[in-house]
Amino acid sequence: MRRVYKAAILGSTGLVGIEYVRMLANHPYIKPTYLAGRGSVGKPYGEVVRWQTIGQIPKEIANQEIRPTDPKQMDDVDLVFSPLPAGSAAQVEDEFAKLGFKVISNSPDHRLEPDIPLIIPEVNPHSLNLIEEQKKRRDWEGFIVTTPLCTAQGVLIPLVPIYQNFRVQSVFITTMQALSGAGYPGVASLDVIDNILPLGNEYDAKMVKEMTKVLNSTKRNVSDESNINISTTTHRVPTIHGHYAVVYVTFKENVDLGKIRESLVNFSGEPQALKLPTAPEKVIVLTEQDNRPQVYFDRWLGDPPGMSVIVGRLTQVDNNAIRFVSLIHNSVRGAAGGGILTAELLINRKYI
Amino acid sequence: MRRVYKAAILGSTGLVGIEYVRMLANHPYIKPTYLAGRGSVGKPYGEVVRWQTIGQIPKEIANQEIRPTDPKQMDDVDLVFSPLPAGSAAQVEDEFAKLGFKVISNSPDHRLEPDIPLIIPEVNPHSLNLIEEQKKRRDWEGFIVTTPLCTAQGVLIPLVPIYQNFRVQSVFITTMQALSGAGYPGVASLDVIDNILPLGNEYDAKMVKEMTKVLNSTKRNVSDESNINISTTTHRVPTIHGHYAVVYVTFKENVDLGKIRESLVNFSGEPQALKLPTAPEKVIVLTEQDNRPQVYFDRWLGDPPGMSVIVGRLTQVDNNAIRFVSLIHNSVRGAAGGGILTAELLINRKYI
Amino acid sequence: MRRVYKAAILGSTGLVGIEYVRMLANHPYIKPTYLAGRGSVGKPYGEVVRWQTIGQIPKEIANQEIRPTDPKQMDDVDLVFSPLPAGSAAQVEDEFAKLGFKVISNSPDHRLEPDIPLIIPEVNPHSLNLIEEQKKRRDWEGFIVTTPLCTAQGVLIPLVPIYQNFRVQSVFITTMQALSGAGYPGVASLDVIDNILPLGNEYDAKMVKEMTKVLNSTKRNVSDESNINISTTTHRVPTIHGHYAVVYVTFKENVDLGKIRESLVNFSGEPQALKLPTAPEKVIVLTEQDNRPQVYFDRWLGDPPGMSVIVGRLTQVDNNAIRFVSLIHNSVRGAAGGGILTAELLINRKYI
Amino acid sequence: MRRVYKAAILGSTGLVGIEYVRMLANHPYIKPTYLAGRGSVGKPYGEVVRWQTIGQIPKEIANQEIRPTDPKQMDDVDLVFSPLPAGSAAQVEDEFAKLGFKVISNSPDHRLEPDIPLIIPEVNPHSLNLIEEQKKRRDWEGFIVTTPLCTAQGVLIPLVPIYQNFRVQSVFITTMQALSGAGYPGVASLDVIDNILPLGNEYDAKMVKEMTKVLNSTKRNVSDESNINISTTTHRVPTIHGHYAVVYVTFKENVDLGKIRESLVNFSGEPQALKLPTAPEKVIVLTEQDNRPQVYFDRWLGDPPGMSVIVGRLTQVDNNAIRFVSLIHNSVRGAAGGGILTAELLINRKYI
Repeated sequence: MRRVYKAAILGSTGLVGIEYVRMLANHPYIKPTYLAGRGSVGKPYGEVVRWQTIGQIPKEIANQEIRPTDPKQMDDVDLVFSPLPAGSAAQVEDEFAKLGFKVISNSPDHRLEPDIPLIIPEVNPHSLNLIEEQKKRRDWEGFIVTTPLCTAQGVLIPLVPIYQNFRVQSVFITTMQALSGAGYPGVASLDVIDNILPLGNEYDAKMVKEMTKVLNSTKRNVSDESNINISTTTHRVPTIHGHYAVVYVTFKENVDLGKIRESLVNFSGEPQALKLPTAPEKVIVLTEQDNRPQVYFDRWLGDPPGMSVIVGRLTQVDNNAIRFVSLIHNSVRGAAGGGILTAELLINRKYI
Repeated sequence: MRRVYKAAILGSTGLVGIEYVRMLANHPYIKPTYLAGRGSVGKPYGEVVRWQTIGQIPKEIANQEIRPTDPKQMDDVDLVFSPLPAGSAAQVEDEFAKLGFKVISNSPDHRLEPDIPLIIPEVNPHSLNLIEEQKKRRDWEGFIVTTPLCTAQGVLIPLVPIYQNFRVQSVFITTMQALSGAGYPGVASLDVIDNILPLGNEYDAKMVKEMTKVLNSTKRNVSDESNINISTTTHRVPTIHGHYAVVYVTFKENVDLGKIRESLVNFSGEPQALKLPTAPEKVIVLTEQDNRPQVYFDRWLGDPPGMSVIVGRLTQVDNNAIRFVSLIHNSVRGAAGGGILTAELLINRKYI
Repeated sequence: MRRVYKAAILGSTGLVGIEYVRMLANHPYIKPTYLAGRGSVGKPYGEVVRWQTIGQIPKEIANQEIRPTDPKQMDDVDLVFSPLPAGSAAQVEDEFAKLGFKVISNSPDHRLEPDIPLIIPEVNPHSLNLIEEQKKRRDWEGFIVTTPLCTAQGVLIPLVPIYQNFRVQSVFITTMQALSGAGYPGVASLDVIDNILPLGNEYDAKMVKEMTKVLNSTKRNVSDESNINISTTTHRVPTIHGHYAVVYVTFKENVDLGKIRESLVNFSGEPQALKLPTAPEKVIVLTEQDNRPQVYFDRWLGDPPGMSVIVGRLTQVDNNAIRFVSLIHNSVRGAAGGGILTAELLINRKYI
Repeated sequence: MRRVYKAAILGSTGLVGIEYVRMLANHPYIKPTYLAGRGSVGKPYGEVVRWQTIGQIPKEIANQEIRPTDPKQMDDVDLVFSPLPAGSAAQVEDEFAKLGFKVISNSPDHRLEPDIPLIIPEVNPHSLNLIEEQKKRRDWEGFIVTTPLCTAQGVLIPLVPIYQNFRVQSVFITTMQALSGAGYPGVASLDVIDNILPLGNEYDAKMVKEMTKVLNSTKRNVSDESNINISTTTHRVPTIHGHYAVVYVTFKENVDLGKIRESLVNFSGEPQALKLPTAPEKVIVLTEQDNRPQVYFDRWLGDPPGMSVIVGRLTQVDNNAIRFVSLIHNSVRGAAGGGILTAELLINRKYI
């Protein structure tokens, strides 16, 4: 029989926190035993949480008491999931890692540091090798592993098999991102009723940097010395969950759409090979209808729900250019689900 | 003193019809004297119209009776504005043109026919020359002039000065279009609450075809034999008015962003030279804030309101690629306002 | 072992149809064997359905072919669920009943006829006795049983236990109803973005009439000769599922809020006594938080999900007046779920 | 020639502040000369304001510099409009009043104090008499006059003529309030997309208290010793401007709907008698269509736009009960417009 791993969830009542709770409530070997929060310490989880996801609050969780974000009270925890917001995450996570905790973070604070793995388990599992260097350099007993920005993952997951096999020149991305990606209270209603909210240069640049770090850590089947050029134009629109992106890709060579389609459909990684419990059978679900994916209808596709990225509208727009559309469940595959899959990989590799 | 021209507005209670009514109510020399409708003939305009625009129903219009779409009853009309929906427009407009009426149409039915001018007054006023050929070929006493798809205009207006002065290779467009562009009842609420609605291949293709026809009729300052490649990915989002587009443009040469900016800011055409009453002083309003334009706040910019196209986020993304964002008031500049400006040009040139 | 009953679902791809499919896919003894549709006969269900509900299309259903709404092709069907829209339902349902089919209808066409049961299984199961009279009077081999308007049920379910035990004078109702209640395409997006849509006198009156019929068929513990006065003000608002209503009730006597609360909490009926599979344990879930129920968060409460009515804000506003708020999942408890519960009751009583 | 009065606007970039700016930009004798703000002192008004209203930022205002909320810098100001938010208003307004400023406040902080007039100019202009007492009691050189909660005004304005002429027993109110009523950022988008947000007991009670104070200061034509019973159930819905309410009124006597209608249509007050520039000709616009008022289409009705309250669905629901629906432009009639009208009255009466 398999060992059970006890997990703490920081920010457990937040929009990513609830997806950790939902997914771990039925996990075969990771159990959510420590639900940390801030404003509501001491209260039953079920009373304070805004359960903005599918299903109902798991009964065995509803009565758990919310506990402080304090490593000293977590003597019986095997791993820590940290979906803390930007800014407040770094210091907390450092403290945990120093004290020996294994931290899987969805927070942006550490993502771009060279000794911190920025992981999509299907894409760059080998980046976990950075952990040794990280522990040594920082003199930490534990470690931090991060997952990329949700909206970056939505584009990266279909882009990676293309990037691995073709000589990409430019990627031009327009996003329409869901409200839950900004947390709660997050986006003001007056910014998105009868409006579209551009996220601005800083957000655009953050997405490019994270995509670049992940692509640079990706193993390719083509040799291509020169850099690729990525540009993003990001927006918030009034959808609740599901980041949607339109992606134009140009190449340094003529490409064959059939081969690109094949690379998408066949894309699979270590989580699938290892049959990790949270690994979707299909990393990418390719849809052929010309009015799909649609956010409302397709964001929960896949098994486990919300773990596949939906790709559609795949079209050759020139000899050396294609267009596709992608949809990712931002708080599942793009955050909690990606974190759990990373944890499963870490357990498999004995890091935990 | 100037002569007054009497205008009929077909579909006068529709979403474009009301903008014609609003704008012509104060026009110096075009008067809305015949308000045609379908279901509500005989009723006072003010009682049946859904006035989904700014201001209140002009008092002198509110009591006008809605009249049938019947050329035989329009003996005292100098020009006819036709914002009829696709499919039903062609036959009606033909009948009017045959009988000698001068029809300015916002409908798609005739736009792509070679002897029908597809006009943006600042871009290709010389295309009005097709009128003679059209009348001859079709044996019509009157004629039809059309304006392009609203969302095509929103991209074309900033694209044209770039296209005139630089050797464009590809244009990759992602749109987020307002509900009013689909008329009423138009888009089902269940398609756009917590959802984004892709408009599909047919709509995408229509936009490309119309853009191509207009670009092909544009006079350029550069010599460039080869075609440009346009691709569009179009969507409906829950905004009421204002079509928003993200546009990536690649070039066959390295470009200088300063010169592109200059071409946009200085873009001006015959309507401005002639000081036509509905011509905006600035065809393009360039905004520098990185979170603008925003649909709610910027769609009515310009003077007359809604006649300028707002361009922002202008950025060089590579030596030979740029990105910009554009916002057009779909039912004003993109339809009724464009129609009125075309009428002013036709009057100036004695076609009417 | 229990017998299995084969069910046809008319309008199976509609917004109520999909809830029938979802709920019956796992039903212990009613199986959805005949999925009828109109526009898409012959196509696989999963290809054409707009699955605007929770979960994914059941795999065994996705490949079923959509079949015509034709009784002659349904030789192997035990009961027929009919969520057909107003107007088109009456004739179809009559034809089925005449031919011997047992029809459970969510359609308004027959609801107010005196020999047609208008059933909420917890409220007036004895109204099924009308079936005999109906068959005789109409010379039908089969029969029709109807369920009330979804929004009427949302108010009736909490109102009935109050009405049974207290001498009600007036009921003043304001509704905020979800879009799915109007079917697809249903409500135009331009009617509910930055707007509230009043449903008008006719709709208001329909709700009062249905409520009156159900109340008149309710057994009371108080003797009260005079009629009660019901008034409704109904609206459509931009929520996807879940009809919300604010209800003020005045009494002909002073009332005790504690006793009213008790009557709500204890409300239970024959479906609970018989432990019918679709009967919720709690017909009414009473919430105490002053900002609940909320449509998004509470519409799926109950077990089976969406089968309980959520009541909150219960307050004494005067000696002889109270206020409460109710939330019903319109297409589950208010339609498909209510229909299935009625079928279970009919089976239990050997009508089927 | 009339004297010009110089006005300071506190919180001038807020959602009520912008309506003050818009309305005063064209006022015949009150000029907005001092635009106070908090975060953006020193910047041009046009650069920082979120202009979430009709029309464009007045050109002469756009370049005005935002100035500190500091009475010492306002030596040349005749009156001060204060739409500051709850909590922060009291202290600031006290300081201004103490120093001799005449403050017209839309803030809740002082509304319920017995020596502070709570004014709707058409309803209780005589309450301005409290000013003398206030100055004496508080030893202030200036004074504070307040206007009621926007949503309370929307119900009070039609309720007052009924209350003046009929023996009202109970008033049962359900509101659907616009987002702008909560300021910016205000309501979180995740609270109102696919949801309705109840405002809770505290908000409900505040509305009742303010309504009671205003009604108690109203002169009646009927003698009625006993109190009336008011209950409110308040909600936020995703509309931008315009508070909508459904109001049920019961009476201690049988009433005649025709006479109630008359009292509404004829309702008029001192501002109309004095022809104050911001007084609407019709305080109440009564609409007869059974699907009106609608928030989007009717909130700007009246002249000046947004200064009338729209009442519709007026119906007798029992011998002694009626129902009506009201719509108020919350930030115009319910705030800035009400404040300006109050200022005009104060000037007329030489308080300023």
